[in-house]
Amino acid sequence: MPVGEFELIARYFERGPARRELLGIGDDCALLAPGARGDALAVSTDLLLEGRHFFADADPVSVGHKALAVNLSDLAAMGARPRAFTLALALPAVDEAWLAGFCRGLFALADRHDCELVGGDTTRGPLTACITVFGDVPAQAALRRDAAQPDDDLWVSGTVGAAALAVHDRSEGRERAADDPARRRLDWPEPRVALGLALRHVARAAIDLSDGLAGDLGHILERSRVAAQLDWEAVPVDATLDGLPDALRRRLALSGGDDYELLFSAAPENRAAIEAAGQRLGLPLARIGRIVAGAGLRLRDARGRPIDLDGHGFDHFA
Amino acid sequence: MPVGEFELIARYFERGPARRELLGIGDDCALLAPGARGDALAVSTDLLLEGRHFFADADPVSVGHKALAVNLSDLAAMGARPRAFTLALALPAVDEAWLAGFCRGLFALADRHDCELVGGDTTRGPLTACITVFGDVPAQAALRRDAAQPDDDLWVSGTVGAAALAVHDRSEGRERAADDPARRRLDWPEPRVALGLALRHVARAAIDLSDGLAGDLGHILERSRVAAQLDWEAVPVDATLDGLPDALRRRLALSGGDDYELLFSAAPENRAAIEAAGQRLGLPLARIGRIVAGAGLRLRDARGRPIDLDGHGFDHFA
Repeated sequence: MPVGEFELIARYFERGPARRELLGIGDDCALLAPGARGDALAVSTDLLLEGRHFFADADPVSVGHKALAVNLSDLAAMGARPRAFTLALALPAVDEAWLAGFCRGLFALADRHDCELVGGDTTRGPLTACITVFGDVPAQAALRRDAAQPDDDLWVSGTVGAAALAVHDRSEGRERAADDPARRRLDWPEPRVALGLALRHVARAAIDLSDGLAGDLGHILERSRVAAQLDWEAVPVDATLDGLPDALRRRLALSGGDDYELLFSAAPENRAAIEAAGQRLGLPLARIGRIVAGAGLRLRDARGRPIDLDGHGFDHFA
Repeated sequence: MPVGEFELIARYFERGPARRELLGIGDDCALLAPGARGDALAVSTDLLLEGRHFFADADPVSVGHKALAVNLSDLAAMGARPRAFTLALALPAVDEAWLAGFCRGLFALADRHDCELVGGDTTRGPLTACITVFGDVPAQAALRRDAAQPDDDLWVSGTVGAAALAVHDRSEGRERAADDPARRRLDWPEPRVALGLALRHVARAAIDLSDGLAGDLGHILERSRVAAQLDWEAVPVDATLDGLPDALRRRLALSGGDDYELLFSAAPENRAAIEAAGQRLGLPLARIGRIVAGAGLRLRDARGRPIDLDGHGFDHFA
């Protein structure tokens, strides 16, 4: 028996009355409770399309996970604490097995971050998920892209390049298995929410790596009107890239996207605090360069010699 | 020369630094300023797809208008004052003439309501617009669907049925001209924001008419656990439906969607205040029935005899 829109919402998305907010699903609007005094509300929105951001045969559990993860990653890059989200979903037909899987991945991650679904929209159409996420951050503690200053250290969390390797291999017809480490980095990104919170008042500028290290760093440099020197040998390239030709390894690590690690700048006097935060969170943090006056991004090898940069991150319309 | 994603955002969507909010387009998140003390943040999201919510050859100016209008209408139905919105857009290709038109319709309406674009996402894909809108409302003044009480009057603003007539004629191959009154109601809905604000502390429950009077009233009845008597002769059927066969006229007026008028319940002692609000706003408000104890919706004619209700509003998956 076909399931109607309202029944579908009730069955998969309504999970009882709003827990943290004043009003959740089922009215014209959700009502978010007033924030703590001085807190700004951080807001980010992402649109995921089948065929572009994930494939028709992708595991719906990982699609649900990733749809929210990329949004939580934006909150993390702002130093914001997740709070709630809305979900607008277009579905070609009501495929209950797909929906059940999608919701399992979505809500497992949401619950881990105490981030509540408060509203949404469903319609029939090409498979599309638009999530808008909300988080709290003291206005003065927000990690903005325009806050980097000359002499700041540049840091990146975790490792880079593994998700790009999975995309690269797929584009060459060598699909990796679902449990392959590179595929897992691509399909199951882990938003660095706890790190973002730890970096409040410690880091200055931050961004999450969605389009590639070089391109995303470029956004910080542009907005902050500064330049950067990046030490290639210090970049934490993921071990799955070991053994690749140098040029490919560098291209995947610097220009491949989908890592969802945090890239941030911080004053040198905060090095110990940052290292302590990394240890506390069990998340390696690598110091990969520094901010300097000027414009542009320079990459250098262990002896300080310049390395050519090719590729500048991902542009959906380039 | 092809336009890249970042250039496209800069050219069409960045309109200088945020005016009302702490941070607008160009960072990982927008930052909404803390609201006034006791204000909740009303949030609504809608997904519009080409081929479903508008046609490929639709005037992009009206598509931009309607994409935001349907969201502002949700704020109106909550009694919330518009404040900001995000826009996630998928485009099959960068069609600058289309984008310029879309933005003209979008921003003309946004500016009229002092509602600021603070963030978004662009990607390549089937034409899709997902808007999430934010508004302020004192938590105690919000017009919730679950607030109707027995003996409340039922009111509706403006007229109903015209947009449904345009859809009906289209489905029968008789497309109306763009300047036809019924087409204009369909393509250029006017969100009843000022009415929503006037109804704070005056109305109890409210909803905007997107799926049809009968279906949308049904949502209030369900959430409020009450029933309603609707007086068919009091329903303000749009004049464009004059001369239609009775059954069709009634079906379009009660079960056709896209009117974006407000349907609300209010205590009988507020009749004078409501009529005064309508006069002040130059917007006819019709008293079309009342809330009673029980469950379900009964329609009656001028002599109080029951009329059969067929059709219950629009369900995207029915």
